[in-house]
Amino acid sequence: MKLIKNNLSEKLIINKYFKKLNLKKKGTFNFENDGAYLELKNKNYKLTVTTDSISEDIDFFNHDDPKSIAQKITTVNLSDIYAMGALPHSYLLNLHLPKHINENWLNSFSNQLKKIQRKYGFYLLGGDLSQSNKLIVSSTFFGSIKKKLEVFQNKLNLHDDILITGSIGESKIGLEILKKKFSSNIILNQYFIQKYLYPTPCKLGPLIASHVNSMKDISDGLIGDLTDMLNGKYGALINVNKIPLSVKTKKILNVQNNFRIENLLNSGDDYGLIIISSKKNRNKIISIANENDIKVSYIGKIISEKGIHFDSYIDMKNIKKFDHFC
Amino acid sequence: MKLIKNNLSEKLIINKYFKKLNLKKKGTFNFENDGAYLELKNKNYKLTVTTDSISEDIDFFNHDDPKSIAQKITTVNLSDIYAMGALPHSYLLNLHLPKHINENWLNSFSNQLKKIQRKYGFYLLGGDLSQSNKLIVSSTFFGSIKKKLEVFQNKLNLHDDILITGSIGESKIGLEILKKKFSSNIILNQYFIQKYLYPTPCKLGPLIASHVNSMKDISDGLIGDLTDMLNGKYGALINVNKIPLSVKTKKILNVQNNFRIENLLNSGDDYGLIIISSKKNRNKIISIANENDIKVSYIGKIISEKGIHFDSYIDMKNIKKFDHFC
Repeated sequence: MKLIKNNLSEKLIINKYFKKLNLKKKGTFNFENDGAYLELKNKNYKLTVTTDSISEDIDFFNHDDPKSIAQKITTVNLSDIYAMGALPHSYLLNLHLPKHINENWLNSFSNQLKKIQRKYGFYLLGGDLSQSNKLIVSSTFFGSIKKKLEVFQNKLNLHDDILITGSIGESKIGLEILKKKFSSNIILNQYFIQKYLYPTPCKLGPLIASHVNSMKDISDGLIGDLTDMLNGKYGALINVNKIPLSVKTKKILNVQNNFRIENLLNSGDDYGLIIISSKKNRNKIISIANENDIKVSYIGKIISEKGIHFDSYIDMKNIKKFDHFC
Repeated sequence: MKLIKNNLSEKLIINKYFKKLNLKKKGTFNFENDGAYLELKNKNYKLTVTTDSISEDIDFFNHDDPKSIAQKITTVNLSDIYAMGALPHSYLLNLHLPKHINENWLNSFSNQLKKIQRKYGFYLLGGDLSQSNKLIVSSTFFGSIKKKLEVFQNKLNLHDDILITGSIGESKIGLEILKKKFSSNIILNQYFIQKYLYPTPCKLGPLIASHVNSMKDISDGLIGDLTDMLNGKYGALINVNKIPLSVKTKKILNVQNNFRIENLLNSGDDYGLIIISSKKNRNKIISIANENDIKVSYIGKIISEKGIHFDSYIDMKNIKKFDHFC
């Protein structure tokens, strides 16, 4: 048996660090099979599936804490599951590991996954390990949603509301601080860096799925994701003052002359939801969000004139399209 | 929008090369959503799932034809689906692409996938693209199997038959020829190289699933995979003369002094099936295989003495454990 550094074989890694994540569910065969069974107990539900990858030097730095990497790969996928109106069910992991990955790393990574699994309620169904010169983590997530429900990303009507959850841009500010583009006081620096390293998904999706026309998570930035949702059919008119920014973000914008709201309109990795829904459902959606302590803001509406428009001046030159494939 | 070389953006790649693979199935949202729905039409079936990755410099050479890479990523996964006794349903692709990948490559890769999809009957459900310095292809395959049927990899009884499909070692010989370890005449060289570059899965699994105790595809070599199946509970007695070798393989063994049957017993990437079944089902299994023009050979039986044993001399020093994680 060939071994990588520290005597880590495929079997040792699976048995010692990943078996604990299958929660002894029958369909996983306790990871002793090459495959698994995937069954929903409730016949009125169907499966949703999404897959996403994160890579060293693109989505995280090679010295990042394995806990942060575990947080990112689950959030990027959970966020899609919730945006489809579904509840998380299970997931697969494809790990491409460089030689420097040791048992401490695996221990920390898998323990964080266990914590996240417990928090959101899902389990590891299976996966695949291979060696690589850079760390790449791919994951496929499964969710469950009522059979009759279908949540689109680009089904919308003229005059529909545009709402978003959370505040935008905090992750982006954290990244800029890490890149030493600017700095604030130690407490704010730490706050934004945590937002970048430990993003969380928004759980509102399944709670409002039957009241919306479309939903999408903000992974590529507000403008980029909203443009995708419009799909070249309609336009959006955004009320700039209604775009939700946290008090801490406003503090940063007040003191950083070269950093303005334009820089946050297409910052990826926010993982809030963009919700497009009929005006008549606005109060219902807001009240469900409030009941669940989730901040939701009405930011504009669907108009016939194509493209993204703002009700006050925005320097569009400063808005760069965010493309993960870069 | 950031672009990689040759102006390839994520959207262009998806629209031009991968949309044709979704066969316009409703649950795929024509790849305009971040996720998909996964439903089996027949209520008496459940889903099986498996995931596998192949990487440049480990599972293929960086100059290999994209058709061969498409063939390998599908065979490695289809082979697991069939070994579970299931029929292929759909799949997800995670592509990690280096900058040198151009439109010719994508065209050739996706056309080969289309051909394979048509041959085995499945479609692309979704996926994910990212940039990487080495080419890595991960894929998750879904299959369907009757709800009441469960095919294990390590459920077996004393005196059970051990059968395998196809002939072992042809892919390994192709790899040795490519690595210039030895050479034969031009026709044989070409034959074995094709076996290495274009492996195919064995479709027998679902046809015999209700007559077997366990099945597994030979991806890590006969000895390695059989050892996994025994799971430390029993042993296997192998009749060396019954191990199926093709006429062409025998020709190679006759002339290559340094290359013997031992070198083929743990050669990966054969993708035949190891079948463990009760003696009373042997004729039934052989007759189903014959009806479907699939070669199947009885090679030995399960014994109480742990480990792998041979009925004639085999130099075990020459058998190396095959571990993908190397």
